[in-house]
Amino acid sequence: MLSNSRLKYIKSLTIKKFRLKHKSFICEGDKIVKELLQNQSFAVEIICALPDWLQENQPLLNLPADQLVQLNERELKKISSLKTPNQVLAVVKMPDFKQDADIPSALCLFLDDIRDPGNMGTILRIADWFGLPYVFASPNSVDFYNPKVIQSSMGAFLRVRSVQGELKEIMDRFPEKKVYGADMNGKNIFTHPLDASGLIVIGNEGQGISESNAPLVQEWISIPSRGGAESLNAAVATGIICACFRNL
Amino acid sequence: MLSNSRLKYIKSLTIKKFRLKHKSFICEGDKIVKELLQNQSFAVEIICALPDWLQENQPLLNLPADQLVQLNERELKKISSLKTPNQVLAVVKMPDFKQDADIPSALCLFLDDIRDPGNMGTILRIADWFGLPYVFASPNSVDFYNPKVIQSSMGAFLRVRSVQGELKEIMDRFPEKKVYGADMNGKNIFTHPLDASGLIVIGNEGQGISESNAPLVQEWISIPSRGGAESLNAAVATGIICACFRNL
Repeated sequence: MLSNSRLKYIKSLTIKKFRLKHKSFICEGDKIVKELLQNQSFAVEIICALPDWLQENQPLLNLPADQLVQLNERELKKISSLKTPNQVLAVVKMPDFKQDADIPSALCLFLDDIRDPGNMGTILRIADWFGLPYVFASPNSVDFYNPKVIQSSMGAFLRVRSVQGELKEIMDRFPEKKVYGADMNGKNIFTHPLDASGLIVIGNEGQGISESNAPLVQEWISIPSRGGAESLNAAVATGIICACFRNL
Repeated sequence: MLSNSRLKYIKSLTIKKFRLKHKSFICEGDKIVKELLQNQSFAVEIICALPDWLQENQPLLNLPADQLVQLNERELKKISSLKTPNQVLAVVKMPDFKQDADIPSALCLFLDDIRDPGNMGTILRIADWFGLPYVFASPNSVDFYNPKVIQSSMGAFLRVRSVQGELKEIMDRFPEKKVYGADMNGKNIFTHPLDASGLIVIGNEGQGISESNAPLVQEWISIPSRGGAESLNAAVATGIICACFRNL
């Protein structure tokens, strides 16, 4: 049974303000929650699940009894952000990747004011696919722990470390990283030599790279167009850019 | 003023069955509707717009008076599929690209059971960016004239010709086209030579290429992964594949 105070607490985590206050977020679904329980970087606070799920996954559930909540489908529906709730919902503590001492030499992304949670989740999935260790995002981007970001990342948030902060700060910490930005007038990404340990700035869906961050870009690159479209979707552009940096 | 019968007709076009019956679809927004009115391939049936929009765009509106409907914001909201309706909605006849005599030598896509309208719209936008003349889709894919496809294509449906049909039929019409399919075990797309006039089959979001179409694929290709993600989003994968075919 879910107490009223817990119901209220879990529902509050769908709102950014309360996620930041409690430093906790929600994650749903059988597959992702199982992966979460086996991941050292994440501390699970509460598991709310159907009786069958709790029984089947007992070996994974190394949590005090009061952190395991058994509920029925109607109750799960009440706290779920999904149209079709999926057996289990976990409340998880946000990890603090900001304190990690060093960034490997591998490619990293900086998202400059990305607003669409589906795009951000898809970008985390791209970073995961190409083995990028970090994705940074500007403070005005959607937060990494928005339920739609978590859901559309398909588990990528478990492997790609995400940190929100200003581009300038990140550049100060890693001054050896070359900063790339994508723009219509940049150099052809298919023919220009690229530094595979760089930091790529991905601009906002409609506006591109912000006025305050554009002067920090050290090299402009572009995906050459052969048709009539004015732009590519931000996640699609990120996929093509990452593919080029990792494979050319 | 919008008559009740017209209101009912326009609302019905949000449903696939009625779109196919009437061979008409809905398109919304100032920018796209203006482009539509100047595009020879599309016949506009009805324009429903706010008074200011009708006045400003009079030179473009080469339509009989009874096909121009002036309405207020409340009425527009009633027929709109958008959260924030945008000045104008057009009812448009579906063009029949199936009759086009020849397919240029350029690269084409075949979407095998793509279900998410946002993915299909984004794929049309990718095809437009890379100058692909045609996108084909299997009969069980979402239809090209779904309002969310139209909206997320950002006008690409005006330039990329879309045809729904079986892969076999398309191959019979264009037997010289080499058929590619993407799969984890395919040849590395970054190093394997690619035929830039081929036909690329893009699989379903969860299941990949269908059992019935897989035997028709003549060459398997893959985007090499270096990380933990199991897959890329279908539109992102399409973007990377098209970029490679057009630029390597």
